[in-house]
Amino acid sequence: MVALTDPDLLFAPETRTLARALYAAVKDLPIVSPHGHTDPRWYALNEPFPDPAQLLIVPDHYIFRMLFSQGVRLEELGVPRVDGAPVETDGRMIWRRFAEHYYLFRGTPTRLWLDHVFEHLFGIDEPLNAATADRHYDTIAALLQRDDYRPRALFERFNIEVIATTEGALDDLKWHRMIRDGGWQGRVVTAYRPDAVVDPDFEGFSANLDRLGEITGCDTGTWAGYLEAHRRRRAYFKEFGATSSDHGHPTAETANLSDAAAQELFDRIRRGSEDERERKLFRAQMLTEMAKMSRDDGLVLQIHPGSWRNHSPAVFQKFGRDKGFDIPTRTDYVSALKPLLDCVGLERGLTIILFTLDETSYARELAPLAGVYPALKVGPAWWFHDSPEGMRRFREMTTETAGFYNTVGFNDDTRAFPSIPARHDIARRVDCAFLARLVSERRLREEEAHELARELAYTLAKKAYRL
Amino acid sequence: MVALTDPDLLFAPETRTLARALYAAVKDLPIVSPHGHTDPRWYALNEPFPDPAQLLIVPDHYIFRMLFSQGVRLEELGVPRVDGAPVETDGRMIWRRFAEHYYLFRGTPTRLWLDHVFEHLFGIDEPLNAATADRHYDTIAALLQRDDYRPRALFERFNIEVIATTEGALDDLKWHRMIRDGGWQGRVVTAYRPDAVVDPDFEGFSANLDRLGEITGCDTGTWAGYLEAHRRRRAYFKEFGATSSDHGHPTAETANLSDAAAQELFDRIRRGSEDERERKLFRAQMLTEMAKMSRDDGLVLQIHPGSWRNHSPAVFQKFGRDKGFDIPTRTDYVSALKPLLDCVGLERGLTIILFTLDETSYARELAPLAGVYPALKVGPAWWFHDSPEGMRRFREMTTETAGFYNTVGFNDDTRAFPSIPARHDIARRVDCAFLARLVSERRLREEEAHELARELAYTLAKKAYRL
Amino acid sequence: MVALTDPDLLFAPETRTLARALYAAVKDLPIVSPHGHTDPRWYALNEPFPDPAQLLIVPDHYIFRMLFSQGVRLEELGVPRVDGAPVETDGRMIWRRFAEHYYLFRGTPTRLWLDHVFEHLFGIDEPLNAATADRHYDTIAALLQRDDYRPRALFERFNIEVIATTEGALDDLKWHRMIRDGGWQGRVVTAYRPDAVVDPDFEGFSANLDRLGEITGCDTGTWAGYLEAHRRRRAYFKEFGATSSDHGHPTAETANLSDAAAQELFDRIRRGSEDERERKLFRAQMLTEMAKMSRDDGLVLQIHPGSWRNHSPAVFQKFGRDKGFDIPTRTDYVSALKPLLDCVGLERGLTIILFTLDETSYARELAPLAGVYPALKVGPAWWFHDSPEGMRRFREMTTETAGFYNTVGFNDDTRAFPSIPARHDIARRVDCAFLARLVSERRLREEEAHELARELAYTLAKKAYRL
Repeated sequence: MVALTDPDLLFAPETRTLARALYAAVKDLPIVSPHGHTDPRWYALNEPFPDPAQLLIVPDHYIFRMLFSQGVRLEELGVPRVDGAPVETDGRMIWRRFAEHYYLFRGTPTRLWLDHVFEHLFGIDEPLNAATADRHYDTIAALLQRDDYRPRALFERFNIEVIATTEGALDDLKWHRMIRDGGWQGRVVTAYRPDAVVDPDFEGFSANLDRLGEITGCDTGTWAGYLEAHRRRRAYFKEFGATSSDHGHPTAETANLSDAAAQELFDRIRRGSEDERERKLFRAQMLTEMAKMSRDDGLVLQIHPGSWRNHSPAVFQKFGRDKGFDIPTRTDYVSALKPLLDCVGLERGLTIILFTLDETSYARELAPLAGVYPALKVGPAWWFHDSPEGMRRFREMTTETAGFYNTVGFNDDTRAFPSIPARHDIARRVDCAFLARLVSERRLREEEAHELARELAYTLAKKAYRL
Repeated sequence: MVALTDPDLLFAPETRTLARALYAAVKDLPIVSPHGHTDPRWYALNEPFPDPAQLLIVPDHYIFRMLFSQGVRLEELGVPRVDGAPVETDGRMIWRRFAEHYYLFRGTPTRLWLDHVFEHLFGIDEPLNAATADRHYDTIAALLQRDDYRPRALFERFNIEVIATTEGALDDLKWHRMIRDGGWQGRVVTAYRPDAVVDPDFEGFSANLDRLGEITGCDTGTWAGYLEAHRRRRAYFKEFGATSSDHGHPTAETANLSDAAAQELFDRIRRGSEDERERKLFRAQMLTEMAKMSRDDGLVLQIHPGSWRNHSPAVFQKFGRDKGFDIPTRTDYVSALKPLLDCVGLERGLTIILFTLDETSYARELAPLAGVYPALKVGPAWWFHDSPEGMRRFREMTTETAGFYNTVGFNDDTRAFPSIPARHDIARRVDCAFLARLVSERRLREEEAHELARELAYTLAKKAYRL
Repeated sequence: MVALTDPDLLFAPETRTLARALYAAVKDLPIVSPHGHTDPRWYALNEPFPDPAQLLIVPDHYIFRMLFSQGVRLEELGVPRVDGAPVETDGRMIWRRFAEHYYLFRGTPTRLWLDHVFEHLFGIDEPLNAATADRHYDTIAALLQRDDYRPRALFERFNIEVIATTEGALDDLKWHRMIRDGGWQGRVVTAYRPDAVVDPDFEGFSANLDRLGEITGCDTGTWAGYLEAHRRRRAYFKEFGATSSDHGHPTAETANLSDAAAQELFDRIRRGSEDERERKLFRAQMLTEMAKMSRDDGLVLQIHPGSWRNHSPAVFQKFGRDKGFDIPTRTDYVSALKPLLDCVGLERGLTIILFTLDETSYARELAPLAGVYPALKVGPAWWFHDSPEGMRRFREMTTETAGFYNTVGFNDDTRAFPSIPARHDIARRVDCAFLARLVSERRLREEEAHELARELAYTLAKKAYRL
């Protein structure tokens, strides 16, 4: 019987021998996951995961967006409605619908991740389709009941050295506290994500600022008090292991206003008398403020710009955020980041990691910027580009100008916990294949490729994220 | 003697064996040509084609643009002048000029298409150049006189299952009527192309609307009457097999005005008192109106945006439209299509096929949009990108996010009838080579690749275009 | 002992045999270097080059930008400060710092160029790192003292048939005069670079215009006199072999004002009463003026747009221009060049070579434009894209629409004289590898590939630049 995933996955025939050798030396390195969206509650409570559909289908926007594009309704996949109207709750029914449509994922990373999970985590060796759906479901459901498939056991089995979750600025981090105080040895850290209190367009922004004031004991009615509240929250997050902050702005625009101008802008926004332009300016200013705080407190600043969130208002109203309707847009960095870079771009102690959904910026903007500004690094291929072709293009378009050492290893960036080893495995394979090609074309010596394979799989992430 | 085109054309050595096997199973599938610009008159009258130059050189903008770029005058190639001034009419002379410059096409798809035509249609096995020009010419000219080289015989020899032509909204479809009523079994359908009556910048727009009113018996002086006229023309086109409409706007901009606002805009335009902004808005609104009609009458909506037509006014004045001076421009889809998508993007019964001349939109915009909106599909690599590298990039940049099943197979999009088998052959080869690579890297199982090869070569086009 | 650079460098295993054969026939062709920045003083005086660090590190922005991005200070690398503050002057210390960080260049073209120089020019066969730094330094330093390592000897050893330098419009060309009058047979020509007298944002623009008037005896206070001054300087440059002019504008914008409007604009600028928009317009107009002069005097016009110069004001203030802080920006050509093309784009006697730092324009804009306008050619992959991946993308994205014959061969574009053979060698290798792939996929016949390899390595540059 042929396995679902081949030992030579992602290795092209012409450079396979060398790719195998490079990969063999890094495949068992511990996983460093410096940026992601798993739920700290899992690690804190260590309860069994729910049924296969609730674990693998319902929360995965890669999956339901594809099925939706081909006519399946989100309700049929168990995606909850904002109005509480009934949706499918039978895990087996959801699973069958998914299995029938699994062929849609041919050629996509979702297919590679899931086949990897089926085989390596659940020991399945037959392809998923309508005929095999129930067998897959039963196998997975049974295993998920076992103690060695609970979150902490998987964490250990996955050989995760450290994983970062992402929490909003107002989060009390109680699950992180429970993990920290509970005596388990797994290293789970948080990251500071202040979108809800830096973006005036965020739902409940004004109330969020009030709440920020209560939590921190700062007067968030004033610019100075508001900044101090951020500083205190950042310090609080650092107590729970945070080494980074994360910022999901619509664009990479930054600003560097005088203190007086920033204060006046803040006052207008606090009074609710600002316009669209000022809301944008405030977001822009806050990226620079965050960078200045990072310079002081050492948190690595991650910028994830360029996603048009909730593109379909009809879907947003019915199902809420994160339903597969976030669409990439053209993103400028060279002029957008200039105010921030003029302020802190030459700082040697600061690390700012830039991500993009616009691959045209790799060779034209991100590599040239990160290849000269000491504070900048290029984050890995992100989201739609976290895929074999996407990762290959990332290396081909950044390496010649920024080198490997202005990149930061891999991010799985996922809430799909069972797929974490698959995602790191695929990243390691793609990087090894890329390095093998460089060696085969004599652009790199073999011993250098070995060194780099390790850096890309493990060391760079630890170093860049200070983990 | 070596053939002009090799059986292994476009198959890379490292994956050749598998590519051959995939291709062998699809190469003889019938041709489905859902979008193109052949002349229905050919099929209606079934007269012999003209001389080799008039058939293959004079109407082909890929060819004369390249020669023009290297200093050959359009007059020397027989391209007619608007003012009726004399141009070369001797087919042999034109052919010789072309043959002398044939080396310019090295590395281009035109070279692949023509060598394919020379060998497979005309049985020629020596390369075209100045020395062989006359032999090629004589061979082709002689064959074109034979009955088995007339349009219907070629149609059958080419194994065309169905071909769509494209006619303007005001066309009387008399050739299509003649084909339909003539008893020939070849399936030739039309497509509804209303640019001349939806684009206020089109030559004679106002008179075109009057004419549209006459043809349909609708009052095209009113918004309601104008829309009704479209509905009737669409119904008329459907009588002649149309399953699609086609729209060649300069951008992908859409609008969704209230009925009152649309009516007011139409009135201004009808009075000729509109400005540039309103002309753009009208085109944008009409895309949405067409999409709504498509929802109702089932015509597949094709959007071909982003070409700057007639870039050189001097050439336009001397030689008119379609003279190789249409230049691609940067094209936005994410914000441009939003009004249309907000209106009908979630409709499961509607199919909108998006094309682009801006490859940066594949991975960033088109695949993410088509990978979630049920109404959207991504059309194949178009025009300058209908080429081996262009098609490869298309697959590499769309598949991981949109999958194969949100694409729609191949369009030859040509008026060069003799080259249709060559174009489909090259598309099939490129797709088989791409699939072979996925299998060789273990990203797909071999039986899946076989299934997909058939879908890409044949089934998807039939399904998407409802043919 | 393994050589630093392999004979199969840049040849992929699957097409290696053919790539080798193609390369073998072109590797010893003379170097034609039609655009670059070497110092004519070197050839005029023929003095020994300075120490290894001053020759290879201090002036190379590719090198110090990478080290700076990883925390090394420019002062430590000997980069002079504007305020004359002390910087490292000990060549050996600079060399050691560089050697310690040489691993940063893995995967970059700088690494390929330098290893090539170390091996082929200096006979070194061990990799550079901290341990070998001194040995490399001593070897190179000793050789640089030898007569056969002086500029003219290297010029001859490098088999340079002709090299162009670049001089500002106000340059007296005294070194060129010395070369011309000195009896040496090496062919060194100048190129006309008038940025300082066509860009109102250039430092000292107004004084530059006064100086231009003095030099030429023209009244540069009037538009007519100013244009005449350009004509005279161009004629003067032609006396020293110039066959081209070069223009480094921030964008590709052009304008074609009436003579009256141009004169009025010039007057405002001369009075210093212009605004930002008018300065842009003036630069735009001057590109068209230069193109018209090129039509008349035959100088090939090179446009190098799209670099945001001196992105960091702090670095600019401390270290001045050309310190690695020039960042590419998104660049439009289709609308930007239209005024110029409407004016002279159809001229068969004119050659305009377009460069870009925005690779998205290759397939979308530059190839379609150069594939039809007789006056346009596409320049080779430039600057950050002068690299194996960059050159491969260039061929993949331009060839299918523009062919090979609307491109112009290779430019080394460098001031790093010792690396010139390395750069041409890499370009020849990449082109041969690309051609080998086309042959291996049967898209080209082998004898055509041989012909093309020679064109790309040698002939096209001579022809396009009229050398």
